[in-house]
Amino acid sequence: MRDFSQDHRWLSINTATVRRQRGKDWPLLDILDACAERGIRAVAPWRDQVAASGLSATAAKLKAHGLELSGYCRGGMFTYTDAASRQAVRDDNRRALDEACTLGAPCLVLVVGGLPGALAGKAAHRDIAAAREQVNEGIAALLHDARERAMPLAIEPLHPMYAADRACINTLEQALDVCDLLDPQRSGALGVAVDVYHVWWDPKLLAMIERAGRERLLAFHVCDWLTPTTDLLEDRGMMGDGVIDIPRIRAAVEAQGFAGYSEVEIFSSRNWWQRDGAEVLDTCTQRHRRCV
Amino acid sequence: MRDFSQDHRWLSINTATVRRQRGKDWPLLDILDACAERGIRAVAPWRDQVAASGLSATAAKLKAHGLELSGYCRGGMFTYTDAASRQAVRDDNRRALDEACTLGAPCLVLVVGGLPGALAGKAAHRDIAAAREQVNEGIAALLHDARERAMPLAIEPLHPMYAADRACINTLEQALDVCDLLDPQRSGALGVAVDVYHVWWDPKLLAMIERAGRERLLAFHVCDWLTPTTDLLEDRGMMGDGVIDIPRIRAAVEAQGFAGYSEVEIFSSRNWWQRDGAEVLDTCTQRHRRCV
Repeated sequence: MRDFSQDHRWLSINTATVRRQRGKDWPLLDILDACAERGIRAVAPWRDQVAASGLSATAAKLKAHGLELSGYCRGGMFTYTDAASRQAVRDDNRRALDEACTLGAPCLVLVVGGLPGALAGKAAHRDIAAAREQVNEGIAALLHDARERAMPLAIEPLHPMYAADRACINTLEQALDVCDLLDPQRSGALGVAVDVYHVWWDPKLLAMIERAGRERLLAFHVCDWLTPTTDLLEDRGMMGDGVIDIPRIRAAVEAQGFAGYSEVEIFSSRNWWQRDGAEVLDTCTQRHRRCV
Repeated sequence: MRDFSQDHRWLSINTATVRRQRGKDWPLLDILDACAERGIRAVAPWRDQVAASGLSATAAKLKAHGLELSGYCRGGMFTYTDAASRQAVRDDNRRALDEACTLGAPCLVLVVGGLPGALAGKAAHRDIAAAREQVNEGIAALLHDARERAMPLAIEPLHPMYAADRACINTLEQALDVCDLLDPQRSGALGVAVDVYHVWWDPKLLAMIERAGRERLLAFHVCDWLTPTTDLLEDRGMMGDGVIDIPRIRAAVEAQGFAGYSEVEIFSSRNWWQRDGAEVLDTCTQRHRRCV
């Protein structure tokens, strides 16, 4: 297991962590400057932030700072109710792939979608098995496009509390079943993003990390689970402030040969998003050394 | 699959559903009267409600109305930090067993506990595997006491969002692994409580219900998952108001031979607990016929 205590060479900042501080959007290009100033070597930007700053300008800024990506957020949302929306999603995911290529991402992270309409509060149906079928079909189709571009797809299983509205792939085991189905040769084109927040509770976590192996472990995300957690979406904790044994999970991932970034992704409307972005970034670097 | 559309013979009310209406405790004995008035045939009382009304008075009232129990809520909370608290928990669980016998419960429902201290916001450690070991030991010890009293224990896997603070058994598969470990002969002394709220998201749900079989299916609880869900604990929905395909799950349970009650357990601080208890009970009977 790598020693993180002396530097933050392997820290990456998911830019949602500092996207909007004290009620004001922090422009992506400024976030990149702030990361570079601190010797942070990698980021994972969100598509809407890239769109707001411009794809070319973002690519140029990344290059100027020598910043790498730990992933690109995000493709997916494969579930649909009609052929038109299915096609629109596929087209949009292709654009996401192209953007990921332009930015030099190591993978496109997939949040696969839940019951169609549920995110807007009006689920079109209650058939989660059917939604999962659509997800499998959607990933299969996108995998074709991804292979053409040599851009790996990383399925991110989301915590079961998001099964209805955000992602109906909810365990690492389930994600790996999809990988085995669609990429049995373990080509590296399809794998998983392991976010400790989503999987820490899983009694099969360590066994499934071993099953994933080097070829399927494409990204590693960290934050913490707070007790109590006051909001299902926006009450994630800073590493060290919660109950997740992050080093144990990182050790398991690295035992399989994963040697990439630890990407910090914190949604925190009541705490970290209410602070100055510089303070949040500084805290991330400190906690990365001490708690990851 | 039984036809529930014509009556509510197989409806049970978990008394937490109407425990405190519009800011005022509804005494258990009055809840039992209100259930009996509506032809409701079963309830699942909570221990603190029984304690407040008196065990003997509760037993007498149940008998007077001919009310059955679908389960007794609850034992468990096995995780500990020192020998004294371990012993206190065991003693308390024995008392819960005795109360369950007095009330004629078909099973004692177990919520097994999470990381010790986490429910109070101060987890003693982050080792969920160790907590799970303590749970296994705790159930093993209690099973001895339960066999002596011929009172079955029903492990209730809780949704993974409660893994830290309430229960570190979070899937039906995991609960069944414990059953197989401690009661390999499938004696009926140890089984599971299937609450649709906790397990609906699980891609292995139907397979695990089949694995459980008749001997291990001791209780069936219903409510619904709302989108959005605004609180991790107290925003459960009334059957029909959310995204859970309850009939599909009931069909799977009944296909294994389960022929007991559908127990309604709704924690809802902002909606159902703000209404008149009579309205809540009437809604439960209607939704039981239409949506379960």
